[in-house]
Amino acid sequence: MDKRELEKLLEQVAAGEVAVKEALTRLRIEPYRDLGFAKVDTHRGIRQGMAEVIYGAGKTAGQILRIVETMREEEEKTILITRLAPEAAVFIEKSQPLVYDEISRIGTVGEMPPKDGIGKIVVATGGTSDIPVAEEAAKTAEVYGNQVVRLYDVGVAGLHRLMDHLDEIMEARVIVAAAGMEGALASVLGGLVDCPVIAVPTSVGYGANFGGLSALLSMLNSCASGVSVVNIDNGFGAGYLASMINHMEGK
Amino acid sequence: MDKRELEKLLEQVAAGEVAVKEALTRLRIEPYRDLGFAKVDTHRGIRQGMAEVIYGAGKTAGQILRIVETMREEEEKTILITRLAPEAAVFIEKSQPLVYDEISRIGTVGEMPPKDGIGKIVVATGGTSDIPVAEEAAKTAEVYGNQVVRLYDVGVAGLHRLMDHLDEIMEARVIVAAAGMEGALASVLGGLVDCPVIAVPTSVGYGANFGGLSALLSMLNSCASGVSVVNIDNGFGAGYLASMINHMEGK
Amino acid sequence: MDKRELEKLLEQVAAGEVAVKEALTRLRIEPYRDLGFAKVDTHRGIRQGMAEVIYGAGKTAGQILRIVETMREEEEKTILITRLAPEAAVFIEKSQPLVYDEISRIGTVGEMPPKDGIGKIVVATGGTSDIPVAEEAAKTAEVYGNQVVRLYDVGVAGLHRLMDHLDEIMEARVIVAAAGMEGALASVLGGLVDCPVIAVPTSVGYGANFGGLSALLSMLNSCASGVSVVNIDNGFGAGYLASMINHMEGK
Amino acid sequence: MDKRELEKLLEQVAAGEVAVKEALTRLRIEPYRDLGFAKVDTHRGIRQGMAEVIYGAGKTAGQILRIVETMREEEEKTILITRLAPEAAVFIEKSQPLVYDEISRIGTVGEMPPKDGIGKIVVATGGTSDIPVAEEAAKTAEVYGNQVVRLYDVGVAGLHRLMDHLDEIMEARVIVAAAGMEGALASVLGGLVDCPVIAVPTSVGYGANFGGLSALLSMLNSCASGVSVVNIDNGFGAGYLASMINHMEGK
Amino acid sequence: MDKRELEKLLEQVAAGEVAVKEALTRLRIEPYRDLGFAKVDTHRGIRQGMAEVIYGAGKTAGQILRIVETMREEEEKTILITRLAPEAAVFIEKSQPLVYDEISRIGTVGEMPPKDGIGKIVVATGGTSDIPVAEEAAKTAEVYGNQVVRLYDVGVAGLHRLMDHLDEIMEARVIVAAAGMEGALASVLGGLVDCPVIAVPTSVGYGANFGGLSALLSMLNSCASGVSVVNIDNGFGAGYLASMINHMEGK
Amino acid sequence: MDKRELEKLLEQVAAGEVAVKEALTRLRIEPYRDLGFAKVDTHRGIRQGMAEVIYGAGKTAGQILRIVETMREEEEKTILITRLAPEAAVFIEKSQPLVYDEISRIGTVGEMPPKDGIGKIVVATGGTSDIPVAEEAAKTAEVYGNQVVRLYDVGVAGLHRLMDHLDEIMEARVIVAAAGMEGALASVLGGLVDCPVIAVPTSVGYGANFGGLSALLSMLNSCASGVSVVNIDNGFGAGYLASMINHMEGK
Amino acid sequence: MDKRELEKLLEQVAAGEVAVKEALTRLRIEPYRDLGFAKVDTHRGIRQGMAEVIYGAGKTAGQILRIVETMREEEEKTILITRLAPEAAVFIEKSQPLVYDEISRIGTVGEMPPKDGIGKIVVATGGTSDIPVAEEAAKTAEVYGNQVVRLYDVGVAGLHRLMDHLDEIMEARVIVAAAGMEGALASVLGGLVDCPVIAVPTSVGYGANFGGLSALLSMLNSCASGVSVVNIDNGFGAGYLASMINHMEGK
Amino acid sequence: MDKRELEKLLEQVAAGEVAVKEALTRLRIEPYRDLGFAKVDTHRGIRQGMAEVIYGAGKTAGQILRIVETMREEEEKTILITRLAPEAAVFIEKSQPLVYDEISRIGTVGEMPPKDGIGKIVVATGGTSDIPVAEEAAKTAEVYGNQVVRLYDVGVAGLHRLMDHLDEIMEARVIVAAAGMEGALASVLGGLVDCPVIAVPTSVGYGANFGGLSALLSMLNSCASGVSVVNIDNGFGAGYLASMINHMEGK
Repeated sequence: MDKRELEKLLEQVAAGEVAVKEALTRLRIEPYRDLGFAKVDTHRGIRQGMAEVIYGAGKTAGQILRIVETMREEEEKTILITRLAPEAAVFIEKSQPLVYDEISRIGTVGEMPPKDGIGKIVVATGGTSDIPVAEEAAKTAEVYGNQVVRLYDVGVAGLHRLMDHLDEIMEARVIVAAAGMEGALASVLGGLVDCPVIAVPTSVGYGANFGGLSALLSMLNSCASGVSVVNIDNGFGAGYLASMINHMEGK
Repeated sequence: MDKRELEKLLEQVAAGEVAVKEALTRLRIEPYRDLGFAKVDTHRGIRQGMAEVIYGAGKTAGQILRIVETMREEEEKTILITRLAPEAAVFIEKSQPLVYDEISRIGTVGEMPPKDGIGKIVVATGGTSDIPVAEEAAKTAEVYGNQVVRLYDVGVAGLHRLMDHLDEIMEARVIVAAAGMEGALASVLGGLVDCPVIAVPTSVGYGANFGGLSALLSMLNSCASGVSVVNIDNGFGAGYLASMINHMEGK
Repeated sequence: MDKRELEKLLEQVAAGEVAVKEALTRLRIEPYRDLGFAKVDTHRGIRQGMAEVIYGAGKTAGQILRIVETMREEEEKTILITRLAPEAAVFIEKSQPLVYDEISRIGTVGEMPPKDGIGKIVVATGGTSDIPVAEEAAKTAEVYGNQVVRLYDVGVAGLHRLMDHLDEIMEARVIVAAAGMEGALASVLGGLVDCPVIAVPTSVGYGANFGGLSALLSMLNSCASGVSVVNIDNGFGAGYLASMINHMEGK
Repeated sequence: MDKRELEKLLEQVAAGEVAVKEALTRLRIEPYRDLGFAKVDTHRGIRQGMAEVIYGAGKTAGQILRIVETMREEEEKTILITRLAPEAAVFIEKSQPLVYDEISRIGTVGEMPPKDGIGKIVVATGGTSDIPVAEEAAKTAEVYGNQVVRLYDVGVAGLHRLMDHLDEIMEARVIVAAAGMEGALASVLGGLVDCPVIAVPTSVGYGANFGGLSALLSMLNSCASGVSVVNIDNGFGAGYLASMINHMEGK
Repeated sequence: MDKRELEKLLEQVAAGEVAVKEALTRLRIEPYRDLGFAKVDTHRGIRQGMAEVIYGAGKTAGQILRIVETMREEEEKTILITRLAPEAAVFIEKSQPLVYDEISRIGTVGEMPPKDGIGKIVVATGGTSDIPVAEEAAKTAEVYGNQVVRLYDVGVAGLHRLMDHLDEIMEARVIVAAAGMEGALASVLGGLVDCPVIAVPTSVGYGANFGGLSALLSMLNSCASGVSVVNIDNGFGAGYLASMINHMEGK
Repeated sequence: MDKRELEKLLEQVAAGEVAVKEALTRLRIEPYRDLGFAKVDTHRGIRQGMAEVIYGAGKTAGQILRIVETMREEEEKTILITRLAPEAAVFIEKSQPLVYDEISRIGTVGEMPPKDGIGKIVVATGGTSDIPVAEEAAKTAEVYGNQVVRLYDVGVAGLHRLMDHLDEIMEARVIVAAAGMEGALASVLGGLVDCPVIAVPTSVGYGANFGGLSALLSMLNSCASGVSVVNIDNGFGAGYLASMINHMEGK
Repeated sequence: MDKRELEKLLEQVAAGEVAVKEALTRLRIEPYRDLGFAKVDTHRGIRQGMAEVIYGAGKTAGQILRIVETMREEEEKTILITRLAPEAAVFIEKSQPLVYDEISRIGTVGEMPPKDGIGKIVVATGGTSDIPVAEEAAKTAEVYGNQVVRLYDVGVAGLHRLMDHLDEIMEARVIVAAAGMEGALASVLGGLVDCPVIAVPTSVGYGANFGGLSALLSMLNSCASGVSVVNIDNGFGAGYLASMINHMEGK
Repeated sequence: MDKRELEKLLEQVAAGEVAVKEALTRLRIEPYRDLGFAKVDTHRGIRQGMAEVIYGAGKTAGQILRIVETMREEEEKTILITRLAPEAAVFIEKSQPLVYDEISRIGTVGEMPPKDGIGKIVVATGGTSDIPVAEEAAKTAEVYGNQVVRLYDVGVAGLHRLMDHLDEIMEARVIVAAAGMEGALASVLGGLVDCPVIAVPTSVGYGANFGGLSALLSMLNSCASGVSVVNIDNGFGAGYLASMINHMEGK
């Protein structure tokens, strides 16, 4: 609720058009339903096609199910569940129309939105092992209506693999670059294109990768312009931001 | 040079329209001039209003001047120099029309572009001490023709200061959030708006801020969607990316 | 034993009222019983309602049982066992009247004290996954007779959830803020209230949270006054300190 | 502004007793004055004796002076400036009645409040080198009207120095323990007393103290109950919190 | 493809000897086959005896098998699979002539090349527990045709064990030094010989070895000349580089 | 072999009393037997009562057994095996007279030496959970003939528990202080006594103990004189060094 | 004061031989004089030849002088001041008979004790740059009456330099090994000798030495027995402990 | 001295051809001259063209001069001094024919060896600021007779700059890749060539580069084969190793 809406609401109260008690309720910024262990946002997706998201890690299968049920009571069309353990997926499938992807550990409840015809999001990975994170990004972007081009295993130690896809890369409106180990993919892509590159360090690797720290630091220190970074393994965050940027309204 | 351009060039060579030697030159992806200690990109700014950038840290005043001269010979209209030491500024001012800002340590050579009328970029800081980094972001965005709204000293420990600017925040197309210490500003802004938030951790603080690490980790772990992070104190990177996103063409 | 008690004891020895041997024993500052692997404090709870605590991690079920038995022989009314593994709980239940909570992994032996009517302690969490740590804090506070208000899943990325509970927050005498990831909850609460805020970083999150380091550093660097921090996941420490502050005698 | 005040304000608007425009202003949670580079809270100290605080680090002498002048225009009685560089102190002294302490780098403008007769705060240090941080805590507490007992150089490597002050320690309502190096002072004090101990790790030491990290981790891992920690070298935070706890109203 | 080849290709296009489409294909630097989840290099081993390598970690048994099959269709003679889990080995053995070594977790498919008579590579370890990493290096070197001398358990805490093999050490053309804990083996060897020493820190040890960090830092800080370092536990990288150096053509 | 022995050996060669081949052999500093995967020192224990040690971690049960057999063939009287997994113990017990302690995971083969009547070594722990590490130290010291006094669960958060054993502490010739969490025990003991204190940080604790780092840094920064530190959880190293110091010959 | 002395004192009180007030005073464990900013131990050096020590870092020249004066009033014969800045030395020299060594930054006031004829302490360094730390250790040991043998620049990258001093090394009763960079000197020495080796990591080096961390971790992970570690650059601690061990009374 | 030389020497002693005293001297592995603060190797450069090296950091100008004089007395032809401070250079120039390079801080005394006609070493940098480190490597390689090709400012964020030098890169026998920030240059080069790549992380950058840690980790985690790493900013080590590999004798 911004300043003008607030002013308008107060005028309605002054005019007797809105009762004090009702104004009081509205002044609570946004509605949600309280399950005790979680407060579920509702109506967040006022914009067409915007799905609701549940972060599955650290929640029991029962808790996730309760949240899904609440959202569906609120008539959410599409629900995205990230970091959903296979066992929890089995549990939820019993009572909900869940579609589950084992690689990205993403579950979706409800119908997928159609592609909305806006430009493409390229999701690239340095290696095969980065694919689970990349799929989390790609599936998230698809849930929000984006067209996604996957370029997997195009790490910088074999530049020709990357160069062979230069035209797809050049056509992207936004790029998600997921890489572990030395994480150089984001810098190389950032130097090639003029569009935003969202770098996702992955925990792939061993030894001095220190759980993704090497790729994280590498990406933060990228000398290419237009690169920004999300948390290690945060495919969802990258996919969500990519969709947000891809949907920027015409200037 | 993308695939179609490559194909076209090869057809021209095949048709005898382009000589082998010339094709060879063109196949070098982009032109630059080699100063020995630096390779200066030229013609990078084909798009209207795109300025050239020199990263001033780690370069001598003489090296920076040489690069500026080379760029101006190439008829660049606007040159942005970041991390420019005051002494180097004094040296360059002697022979170049430098405008220098002591707080952000940014110098500009050549005329500033007019505001291009696209939506606003909000640059916010947690405290007063974060202003130098924020100004680097703001000035960078302005050099690329963006309109910038500055909201300084609106850290989360005094929410009312932030809330008082809710309407400006809500109107932003992109937000740059610069904060040191606990770096929570990015999360709070990210939770309030639907536009991309570029988080810039600053090295402001002491003790367990470990040179900006506290804000960096805080921002990377933001549970708000739409937040991505650049390097500690990297105001330029944030401003550049904000401009890039702000200029996304209509979908 | 403070200086006056020491002086008094020495006078009693000088007067022959206390034998040397007895004085020698008393001069050992506080009594305890030695089990070999552990020294069990007794009579620590001279103040009404003060329960004894066993830190369960790193102790075998047998060791915990032995300590419980010793305490009960010393007629302790309430025994709190933290970090009690479910298997150890099953073992102890066989011979002791244990009440066990799976979420917080807290066990209690003996009757719970009544609420003592002093002001409320608010225990808040950033997300659902922080609840086990928060429950450790809340249950600890309750064992010491405090009234606890739970505000769960009120993280800063959705400020309205927090703002909706402003009156409960404003009424608190002490606040415990448990949050993982960016840990900003403590700063925002600390900026809203005038009472002490005990920040508990949790290890909830992934990637660059580095096992709770992100929330820990964020909380230590809070620019809100009145915030102090306990160890990562240390719900007990927060609950105990909250109770101690809540029970401060009138000035 | 809590829920009841909000309800009352809305009723006044509904009754025409308060104009919409005025209500709008009041709904901004708290007043402040905007200096551009800083937003200065005013009237924060409604409670008797509560001083205003300026964090001096990272601000120019001119900026600090501007903030002081603004506060004095708002008729603040006591202003506390922490981390005030000696040169800045010289600058401010020219136009303001500043009292400056070189050791703690604390400046005060305006009259000091009288001691308010509530219990004592003990400020202890492990060594001589910790005194600047301890003085920041002690002076802060005094500015808020507390009586402070200083116990300096009582580190655990010479227990008798500490034990010789047992009666002063036992009489404390709150203890601030400032120590660098191994930072064990907080644990030992925490084990001796029943009152809250606020641990301040200091950056005193060398080598593997890693700028205060050793004391910080030591204090966070304290196995004594009732201990919480503030940022490295954060004497102000400790002193402020100590005062807040010391002033807890009778239960 | 270097500059001269590029020139030649363009001349062929100009002369009509090579069609545009074909040139386009050739300009993709090197051939590979795309399996979707992985891009498999082919013909990389133009040089006699050069085997193909699959990094087994983070790939499913099925993925590894698919890559092996593709390589064998391309008529690779020797395939080396590193970090191959025992279960995956069992799976692959069913359809491929895999030879598997449990200690180094290395699998080979196809015939081993004969020793090519060039100088010896010494692979040394500090202790018995470093052997798996050392064997990964040794087997890798053998797959590329090198003669390997193994010196295991010759750590610097028992110099005589090392000194007893001085003649083998002195005869080496390249040395691989694998050690965990304090990792001093590389420095001592580097001080004794005039040939390159490739240091492999291992994660062997406990406590303050921090997963191999102690040996890594020790080796990076070696004051012996001629020592360089690969990733923690990266036996393959060391063996591959050792082979590359051993095969340097005569000057 | 020191300089004089070398001189003597050379004179014997010159005099024809020792053959060149034999001298060559003797010049290898100390004898050992080579098992391929390990080089087993023999005759190291020339001094009365000195046992041989096998570090069990990272070795298979078979490897350990082979080393034990080799040592016994060399007529070692007492063999100490540290970090011996229970399963390996079961395996070795089948053919060797192993005595195994589950808590310290120490195994001994052969008769224990008698106490040699030299002064006592005190082994103290901060808590119950530190006992396994402490027992590794204590048993190691006993295997080398020392008399050990165990003081367990005497952490600094309950000083009276420690003070009650002041006489035992004061009588120690060497002290081993094993503690996790804040690791303050070593400093407090170091401040009380005039004998060497060997500090063993343990990995006991959680959260910001970072696997023993907190205790390690705390102990390294001890401001008590006479304190030195061994690796985290290195009970053996502490026990061995304590024995070495305890056996220092009269000055 | 141990248990028996306590018992005796109490009996004297019971017998009226000692007044309560006097007993009270004596029960304070050890005497010291309180200068406000420091508590100066007196009579600590009951044992012949034991000097008093002042840690000079973090104290002003004036504070150090005050402590020296106090000690000399208490008739201390030898006072050792470590980490004494050259400017402070100049200040103290004006009124005290200070002898100052610029390399080790150690000052001594009063006569040096004669060598007491007990065995030698070897102080060794890896390189020339480690000498300041080594001299702090050596001078400290000399102040306590020990004979010191200096072996400088004998790092492991040139084993022959070390081996050439084998006889001096073998004759040592205690060894102090100071080394930066890879810190391997301690392990090599620990493997050669049967006496305690006190390892002092130094901050010498650059890059990945991280201020001494590389040497510290290397030394903590030493696989040689008999090695323990003090803080980075802590020459005093090593020299003090070496003297303490060297003076162990005959068993 | 290897085993055969030892055997021969012993036979000469047995035959009376070599006196015991002389043999004793020779058995010291290599000669050096002892300056007290440093042990200067002599005759190390038996191989033609091998220069002596002095690491200048941490040594006084006087110490460096003493070492230079000693080496020249031993008739060393070329002396290389790294990390030589400008002031020290001025001091040494007074009495020695020093040639000093300000950028790399390298000094040489004596004549430079001629290029020896063996293949080229490419020294590449990511940016202009990496040049000092690269020059240390390049000059070191030149001092040892190598031909060096410098490719500066060819970082991966502008791939075309790098690709334009593909032929020089392909012709290299060894490559030194010096880069700060994200350090991706080593990986990209490693993926392009078949020769060894020595990666030198530099401390160039700011913020989350953590003094070179980002580039270090990136390079250690390189997924390109044939890459190994030296210490941060260790240009000398890279140049020395590059020369050693370049001079490998024909197989």
